[in-house]
Amino acid sequence: MSVSRSSLASILALSLAHSFGPLAAGLAGQESGSDVARAFRDANGARILSDYAQLLSIPNVASDSAGIWKNAEFIRDRLGERGVDSRLLTLQGANPIVYGEIMVPGATRTLGLYVHYDGQPADPTNWTHDPWTPTLYTKSMEIGGEPRPFPEAGEAIDPEWRIYARAAGDDKAPIGAMLPVLEAFHTSGVTPTSNLIFFFEGEEEAGSTNLGRYLESYGDLIEDIDVWLLFDGPVHQSGRPLLSFGVRGVTGMEITVYGPIRGLHSGHYGNWAPVPGQMLANLLASMKADDGKVLIEGFYDTVEPLGAMELDALQKLPKYDAELKRELGLARTEGEPQTLPERLQLPSLTVRGLSSGNTGALARNVIPSTATAALGVRLVKGNDPAHMRSLVEAHIRKQGYHIVREDPDMETRLAHPKIAKVSGGGGYPAARSPMDLPILQEVVEAARRAAGNDDVVLSPGSGGSLPLYLFTDMLQKPILMVPIANHDDLQHAPDENLRIWNLWYGIDFYAQLFTMPGG
Amino acid sequence: MSVSRSSLASILALSLAHSFGPLAAGLAGQESGSDVARAFRDANGARILSDYAQLLSIPNVASDSAGIWKNAEFIRDRLGERGVDSRLLTLQGANPIVYGEIMVPGATRTLGLYVHYDGQPADPTNWTHDPWTPTLYTKSMEIGGEPRPFPEAGEAIDPEWRIYARAAGDDKAPIGAMLPVLEAFHTSGVTPTSNLIFFFEGEEEAGSTNLGRYLESYGDLIEDIDVWLLFDGPVHQSGRPLLSFGVRGVTGMEITVYGPIRGLHSGHYGNWAPVPGQMLANLLASMKADDGKVLIEGFYDTVEPLGAMELDALQKLPKYDAELKRELGLARTEGEPQTLPERLQLPSLTVRGLSSGNTGALARNVIPSTATAALGVRLVKGNDPAHMRSLVEAHIRKQGYHIVREDPDMETRLAHPKIAKVSGGGGYPAARSPMDLPILQEVVEAARRAAGNDDVVLSPGSGGSLPLYLFTDMLQKPILMVPIANHDDLQHAPDENLRIWNLWYGIDFYAQLFTMPGG
Repeated sequence: MSVSRSSLASILALSLAHSFGPLAAGLAGQESGSDVARAFRDANGARILSDYAQLLSIPNVASDSAGIWKNAEFIRDRLGERGVDSRLLTLQGANPIVYGEIMVPGATRTLGLYVHYDGQPADPTNWTHDPWTPTLYTKSMEIGGEPRPFPEAGEAIDPEWRIYARAAGDDKAPIGAMLPVLEAFHTSGVTPTSNLIFFFEGEEEAGSTNLGRYLESYGDLIEDIDVWLLFDGPVHQSGRPLLSFGVRGVTGMEITVYGPIRGLHSGHYGNWAPVPGQMLANLLASMKADDGKVLIEGFYDTVEPLGAMELDALQKLPKYDAELKRELGLARTEGEPQTLPERLQLPSLTVRGLSSGNTGALARNVIPSTATAALGVRLVKGNDPAHMRSLVEAHIRKQGYHIVREDPDMETRLAHPKIAKVSGGGGYPAARSPMDLPILQEVVEAARRAAGNDDVVLSPGSGGSLPLYLFTDMLQKPILMVPIANHDDLQHAPDENLRIWNLWYGIDFYAQLFTMPGG
Repeated sequence: MSVSRSSLASILALSLAHSFGPLAAGLAGQESGSDVARAFRDANGARILSDYAQLLSIPNVASDSAGIWKNAEFIRDRLGERGVDSRLLTLQGANPIVYGEIMVPGATRTLGLYVHYDGQPADPTNWTHDPWTPTLYTKSMEIGGEPRPFPEAGEAIDPEWRIYARAAGDDKAPIGAMLPVLEAFHTSGVTPTSNLIFFFEGEEEAGSTNLGRYLESYGDLIEDIDVWLLFDGPVHQSGRPLLSFGVRGVTGMEITVYGPIRGLHSGHYGNWAPVPGQMLANLLASMKADDGKVLIEGFYDTVEPLGAMELDALQKLPKYDAELKRELGLARTEGEPQTLPERLQLPSLTVRGLSSGNTGALARNVIPSTATAALGVRLVKGNDPAHMRSLVEAHIRKQGYHIVREDPDMETRLAHPKIAKVSGGGGYPAARSPMDLPILQEVVEAARRAAGNDDVVLSPGSGGSLPLYLFTDMLQKPILMVPIANHDDLQHAPDENLRIWNLWYGIDFYAQLFTMPGG
């Protein structure tokens, strides 16, 4: 137990003053909230898994309105059954927010709990099972796991089991872990030590384009929140719990280059007609060197340097690159000898997809008419999305391209030797909170208690993206990223999964968090 | 008429000596073979189209054995009904050859007539209509043609109509034009002036891998052939008939490069994990400059220079680049100011296809695990396919890649910073026959008579590929490429089509060819 003397004193004081349910953490001779949650988990493991599978079975792509509403109503009702005052917040043209609150008389601290219940689109043909038919495996498929039935009540549960489904890791996992804790508390009369405000978004994977409007429109509901805790992303690659004080921003674009107006026989025209796949390759190669350095002018110029504390934290991060490379089958990484955490403090340019004509069995002797690349750009503190896109576009122009927004008409084609359509965009900037804020340090302590040791990894900034600038810049509130999913959850990819150990850790962590001292 | 005095004399001599049916060409007062064919075409246009549509409706991808056999038997039977002694030649593991002969007593010349009845694979989702449901249009779709019913008997037929179907241009068109000529001759008792040997292949689009075996195994059937006439490919881009004295060879390969062993979140790993789409772009960019010059060492070293006559023919070719660029929406071409015919006398390197992750609606925030390019290489006289592939592989190695033939295992991945799988290959060399051979000049004259003028384009070498080295190098016989399809037939691409004018020209040409003087 790492509860300080002063925390204990304040809990006792609160307890005497307000007489609500049993305050959990560290009260000798009384069952703590974390004990209650752990006992509940041990007694109800099979049901926790089947409840979670039920949630995962509801398709949750942000563009699928029917599925999204089913998810939102399902989650709202489950929260309601567990004593949370829950409802849906709505805005025209936006997916609903599942909102809920537990207001604790006398609590002096309000935690904002952010989760997103939508998931990435999934191409079922690339999945081993249907993405929305949760399937339990004895361990990771990649190391020989086999499918197995969900357990019966009372059956022993191996924490190495994995549930395969879209959003199993990203980002329904926190909901799957939070509901059992709330049920345990509700059943046993455990009262949290902070006001809790649940705020679950339904379009994060679609860019969170309405989150800002929601935060503005429902400002009165959230104005008392002292800290926003973001439950998203995976834990550290070592498997150790991770708390992160920032996230990268994101933008991107799709680039299409044009050859002949129709596909041409590669024999009759090959060596004469411009080949869009070649043009695209030459364009992309001009953007980034083999060693990972982005060659676009100004790409690194606006990066805000890390402070001394952040640099120190980076130094203290586990040295995990070698193990990760072994696991991922990589004999080299971009920017070596810089480590992964160091590389995440810089903006990145990623070819997410390439397409032109066909490869494999459908490949034909054709010079295709177009070639397309989907580019992702991750941003760090200091980078503005629109500015970074403008740098990429300036680079494309410097390679001799005329940029268009729609497919070019014949006149445009004949006027310009090289044409690139650049579409997409949007995105948002990065966000970072100071590492030494007391309220953030309290959450760090709760995570350390849940982990049973001090072995929690603290990162000045994660690689993934969430629109946390809305909290840090617009609302001027601190944030902390508090992931629980396994790092190898294949989030965003086929065969996404959650390791049961990580669900169990989430239950322990939320129990500690909801009852942390000093409320 | 450009029949020489000596040709006329030999025809008369033959006629007197052998008393077979009416010899056609140039006999005053007697109906010529071409008149007979033209009259038949005028009287039976609707049926010619519906017969052709019936042939086109039989799926003919080389890998589809059932469809291939249906085609072969259908064609064999149609030939048989028209007085051709026809049958199927077979070899274990190969698609059948439709073989037929018309042996003319006393004929001193034997023409080998090559066609291929198989077609390129087709992805129906990219076609306006099903590829094997022939659809008639009032003109090219691209200039606003509309679908219309096939004509009733006697209905006027617009030569600008087009039939849309896989293989409509490549390469069932010659069959569609040959059958009416044979029927007209058979019905009217017109005897060809040469022995005709029909030799229709069923796996040209699959690389003609068994053609050599067939030519060897059935050597006795074909040993008397004096010239092989290859009915394949499109006419000149100007629309004028084309005769070509050579073809390019072909080879190619598929290259796959490897990033992490599984797809990784582009936020959590972007800027650290190698991105296969970027690696592939950099590799392809190292192979070919923006101006079209291939940068692979030795790529142009083995090109056999053109002779004086071929260079002269190249100079005389119509200057058609400007019009073609306008039609294809191109403001530039590779290797400018060299013209298309000049560029076809060089080997080419074409990115036929690219794939990695997803683009468009399915694009995800993932660093894909692999990226693949399908490369086509066209060869000219002097280039050996295996040698050219070895040059490409040497170049890949020079870029730091370890080359594998199968997906790399973990050990291989961890041993090599950059890995490329190079697969595929095969192909065959180019072929060229001397332009001044008398028998080839006779065919040139027949084409000029069919075209009604001297406006036939003579090319020293076409861009497309056929395994004609089997005839020129193995059998040591001259070849001549004799295409009839419209140049904008979209062969190998979706919405392939044949312009009716070109079918009519084919009928005229075959009538002239089969009755050309000097037999």
